[in-house]
Amino acid sequence: MPRVNGYAALEARGRLVLFAFDRRDVRPHDVAIDITFCGICHSDIHQARDEWTDSAFPMVPGHEIVGIVRQVGASVTRFKVGDTVGVGTFVDSCRSCDNCRAGLEQYCIPGNSQTYNGTEQDGKTPTRGGYSNHIVVDEHYVLRMPPSLAPQGAAPLLCAGITVYSPLRHWKVGPGSRVGIIGLGGLGNVAVKLARAMGAEVTVFSHSQRKREEALRLGARRFYVMPNVDVAEELKYGLDLIVNTVSVPIEWSRYIELLRLDGTMVIVGIPASPAPVEAMPLIGARRCVAGSGTGGIAETQEMLDFCAAHNIVSDVEVVRIQEVNEAWNRVVNNDVRGRLVIDMASLPAPGLDEEAVTDIGLGPGPAPGWWRRAQE
Amino acid sequence: MPRVNGYAALEARGRLVLFAFDRRDVRPHDVAIDITFCGICHSDIHQARDEWTDSAFPMVPGHEIVGIVRQVGASVTRFKVGDTVGVGTFVDSCRSCDNCRAGLEQYCIPGNSQTYNGTEQDGKTPTRGGYSNHIVVDEHYVLRMPPSLAPQGAAPLLCAGITVYSPLRHWKVGPGSRVGIIGLGGLGNVAVKLARAMGAEVTVFSHSQRKREEALRLGARRFYVMPNVDVAEELKYGLDLIVNTVSVPIEWSRYIELLRLDGTMVIVGIPASPAPVEAMPLIGARRCVAGSGTGGIAETQEMLDFCAAHNIVSDVEVVRIQEVNEAWNRVVNNDVRGRLVIDMASLPAPGLDEEAVTDIGLGPGPAPGWWRRAQE
Repeated sequence: MPRVNGYAALEARGRLVLFAFDRRDVRPHDVAIDITFCGICHSDIHQARDEWTDSAFPMVPGHEIVGIVRQVGASVTRFKVGDTVGVGTFVDSCRSCDNCRAGLEQYCIPGNSQTYNGTEQDGKTPTRGGYSNHIVVDEHYVLRMPPSLAPQGAAPLLCAGITVYSPLRHWKVGPGSRVGIIGLGGLGNVAVKLARAMGAEVTVFSHSQRKREEALRLGARRFYVMPNVDVAEELKYGLDLIVNTVSVPIEWSRYIELLRLDGTMVIVGIPASPAPVEAMPLIGARRCVAGSGTGGIAETQEMLDFCAAHNIVSDVEVVRIQEVNEAWNRVVNNDVRGRLVIDMASLPAPGLDEEAVTDIGLGPGPAPGWWRRAQE
Repeated sequence: MPRVNGYAALEARGRLVLFAFDRRDVRPHDVAIDITFCGICHSDIHQARDEWTDSAFPMVPGHEIVGIVRQVGASVTRFKVGDTVGVGTFVDSCRSCDNCRAGLEQYCIPGNSQTYNGTEQDGKTPTRGGYSNHIVVDEHYVLRMPPSLAPQGAAPLLCAGITVYSPLRHWKVGPGSRVGIIGLGGLGNVAVKLARAMGAEVTVFSHSQRKREEALRLGARRFYVMPNVDVAEELKYGLDLIVNTVSVPIEWSRYIELLRLDGTMVIVGIPASPAPVEAMPLIGARRCVAGSGTGGIAETQEMLDFCAAHNIVSDVEVVRIQEVNEAWNRVVNNDVRGRLVIDMASLPAPGLDEEAVTDIGLGPGPAPGWWRRAQE
């Protein structure tokens, strides 16, 4: 089994450290990928900090993976060595439930295999993500990256992009649709671009005046710093769909009341605690609060092709893997424009760094519990 | 202007007392109705106790009104003296907004005229409800009661009935639909009947084992006393639609996770405080929490005709107006099977009771603030 390097959290809230582990050997339907870029998603941080509970460690995060095919299994038909490919938030699913058969593998009923912090379909082999040199994935769960898209800008499409594309499509956004986007982080940035490309009129809500220029540059018609007492009067009944990308608690009801009759606010960010929802704004115009989680493989490919046709990538800042802990702090502090993406060429190849912790025992590096003790 | 008697709360949380006030003279499009029965809706209590804030007093509650036409205006075409008619939760609306023009007067954008605790479309004349002898309503907002339905059982259809019928129709319940009903009070009772008549398989959730027999008698396939740890396993992905009739805070997320992909939980009861909602059960299967408020006039007539065709009325217990304060306590304490309905023949005709408080000055009866002082 090939040994690879990655960056891992060894325990909840642990600082990411260099970590050596084994990938599986290539099976007949597998594609082996040398990872070139991996986006930093806020959910990497939520999970490494165990904010959604039940995290498993050591954890190698990363599910916005772009790379080059290095090897294909004997039965692989869709990819060849040298192709630029992508891997998103899951690497396998049951393939037999109603949702999998409908191409909605993101909602696999027995549970799909998350790209990291999950298990393979055997229910026990841990999955490890894209903060690593190399990954091995069944070809059905691999995406074809359009050659016209810069790989570092395209990497975030594999989670941030599909996470907002899917609800925009499901709730039938098209020319003239009035779409609100809450939050202008990694998801919001690409959501504005996608909604504009679909023909929508876009309103952006942010906590920070600093985001105004970016929002307008991306094509938003309106921008509101929230909370804002005027918005309720100016936009009442004015939005068909709101995509809420914010994964910290905010007052959902203040946005819900901006929706027209039968309008929907879609939650795509997962706050660590429940959000209080008032019944009255829902009942007053038969409005909905819905959730949406990434997208199926076919829809993700459709999204990538849509992005190629409209020349859409995420606005990104490329960082080195050695900067990842500081990068995470910037994400938490909202100190990022668009998405941070790791240039995986900065990660030492396996065997070149004697400092690596391995999955056999804990070598040099922070001992378990240091973070927790540092907090005490 | 004709003087009538009613029962009113003179202040927030005040005990209902006999109250004399004037109805308007009959205008060309008006129907004057002698009220025979009026249902007791939980929202009467919420509003009289100012639990939804901004209540106006004196308040004559009641919006499940059945009566006999006593007089019609010169231009009235749809009703004649002697007809049995109904009035629901609103008595007028702007008639010109998109929603009114679409027959969705319950969602009138400038705001409809609630049957009580509201104002006429002039924005100032207070509306007073069905806990009274008599009411005057524009014919467009009056319903034709099917003669085959017992009036005391049909009265609750005008709020409880339409409130659950409308979402069952909007979310396309039909043969084979798997519908959950939370709460077996006034709304839940008729919701089970309506969903069964539409061909659905019904599951009832209640806080009380005492409701089991009623649920099964009404035709529910399954009954769960909540909270119940087994329900998540037994019903996971098992419901297409949940109608949540409970107007006290409960854990919405525990029900949301029982829905299939794209399933909806509809809130029709209004808790006094916001309900905490977890994002994960929404995102995990693209589920929705929606609200729905009563129904339009055309849909309410459709519902009444549907009930006549399927011989559906609410299970009711008839009380006298003099028992109304105790009746309200029973509603709050869930000590009711189906709906309590007031026999308005028990209310003295105007002028016959010298004890009545009038809307000119406060006569005998509890002085303002007694309830509040009693609480101190």
